[in-house]
Amino acid sequence: MGQFEQATVQKKANIYYDGKVTSRTVTLQDGLKVTLGIMLPGVYEFGTEGPETMEILSGELKVRLPGAEVWQEIKGPETFHVPGNSKFALEVFTVTDYCCSYPDKL
Amino acid sequence: MGQFEQATVQKKANIYYDGKVTSRTVTLQDGLKVTLGIMLPGVYEFGTEGPETMEILSGELKVRLPGAEVWQEIKGPETFHVPGNSKFALEVFTVTDYCCSYPDKL
Repeated sequence: MGQFEQATVQKKANIYYDGKVTSRTVTLQDGLKVTLGIMLPGVYEFGTEGPETMEILSGELKVRLPGAEVWQEIKGPETFHVPGNSKFALEVFTVTDYCCSYPDKL
Repeated sequence: MGQFEQATVQKKANIYYDGKVTSRTVTLQDGLKVTLGIMLPGVYEFGTEGPETMEILSGELKVRLPGAEVWQEIKGPETFHVPGNSKFALEVFTVTDYCCSYPDKL
């Protein structure tokens, strides 16, 4: 699916790590909240409130999911899931375009 | 206006200058095309097809408009206009959040 229709888009960007990670919040027609974002090469850590589905549209990175010993290589297009109330680490190797969805924000 | 409603959002990002400038294309309910974007500090040049309205939501930069001798200081929230079929130069000082609209793309 290349586009979201009948969506509500927040004009103001979400900006993290001095702009190396940024996103826009979009609420879909069914009420699902997603963020469309960009990550530049770097090492990041994020925390989750609820579970998150990270759809990597393009880009190469590795992720260490909560409780995992090893890093998981991700090469878009590919998706990974992060449980709620947890932290995950990312090492981004190339400019990465992603769509993060928040299933319980329905 | 903090958000666009009933809009169509392209999932895939527009990526320029190795990710230092990125945006998402949004088509509004009335058919107007806009791009919601981020510029990291740096010096850039862009070309226009049709006229463009650059609404700087936040951030500090200076712009040299086509045919202008001097640079214009811009501090969001502030808007400037660029004629069609022209080039404009930007020097971005802080992470800049913008909304560019394309009036003749109605």
